[in-house]
Amino acid sequence: MNLTHIEHLGIAVKSIEESLPYYEQVLGLKCHSVEEVADQKVKTAFFKIGQTKIELLEPTSEESTIAKFIEKRGEGIHHIAFATDNVADALAEAESKGVRLIDKAPRKGAEGLNIAFLHPKSTCSVLTELCEDPNKK
Amino acid sequence: MNLTHIEHLGIAVKSIEESLPYYEQVLGLKCHSVEEVADQKVKTAFFKIGQTKIELLEPTSEESTIAKFIEKRGEGIHHIAFATDNVADALAEAESKGVRLIDKAPRKGAEGLNIAFLHPKSTCSVLTELCEDPNKK
Repeated sequence: MNLTHIEHLGIAVKSIEESLPYYEQVLGLKCHSVEEVADQKVKTAFFKIGQTKIELLEPTSEESTIAKFIEKRGEGIHHIAFATDNVADALAEAESKGVRLIDKAPRKGAEGLNIAFLHPKSTCSVLTELCEDPNKK
Repeated sequence: MNLTHIEHLGIAVKSIEESLPYYEQVLGLKCHSVEEVADQKVKTAFFKIGQTKIELLEPTSEESTIAKFIEKRGEGIHHIAFATDNVADALAEAESKGVRLIDKAPRKGAEGLNIAFLHPKSTCSVLTELCEDPNKK
């Protein structure tokens, strides 16, 4: 699987507004985008640091998987996302090696990326996303 | 705080040996170092991906904080580590902004880095490490 870098880290928070002062004023990062991803029932905020982005995830509904994550485990790191040049190929390779897939095919995620998730049962308990930037092709 | 990139992500695992096939054969990363950090009662394994390393943390004692983390929350992402050029300055700045520190002064971590941890009570529940590479000065 040709992974080039960590595209982003997803961090579950109860409130982006209440988390912003830590990321901006303590860590000194700059939020460059706030976006609602309706089908995942989350609001997201992005900060760039080196090659990687930090993606804060705030649930917009109690039905959101992020709301359920926070209820069960509290706020914290929710997933890791690796950048690859071809998510469909990476999924096929993962499946051929016995990895359980959450998404059988790439779908659209935040920031226009093509994304897919691998199941934590197959990834040493780390919810893992694969991302491809269609603008870099 | 002058953070340049994510230096590494610490991931708690029960067994490095059992986790290696996923990281090496599925993700295609290469383990470049296995090291025991006696005072933290862990064995570590490092993989490089872009600017960032993945650090697997296996407890070598039931008294290890990693053993307690796994007992309470299961395997998964344990901490995020940011690279900075001066950990002591970053700690002083964090403390001046009301952040609770786990380490009041830098100490030696894996791979010869000077490191210090911030308390998750002050970091939106994400255990956060600051790292400085003394060889880059």
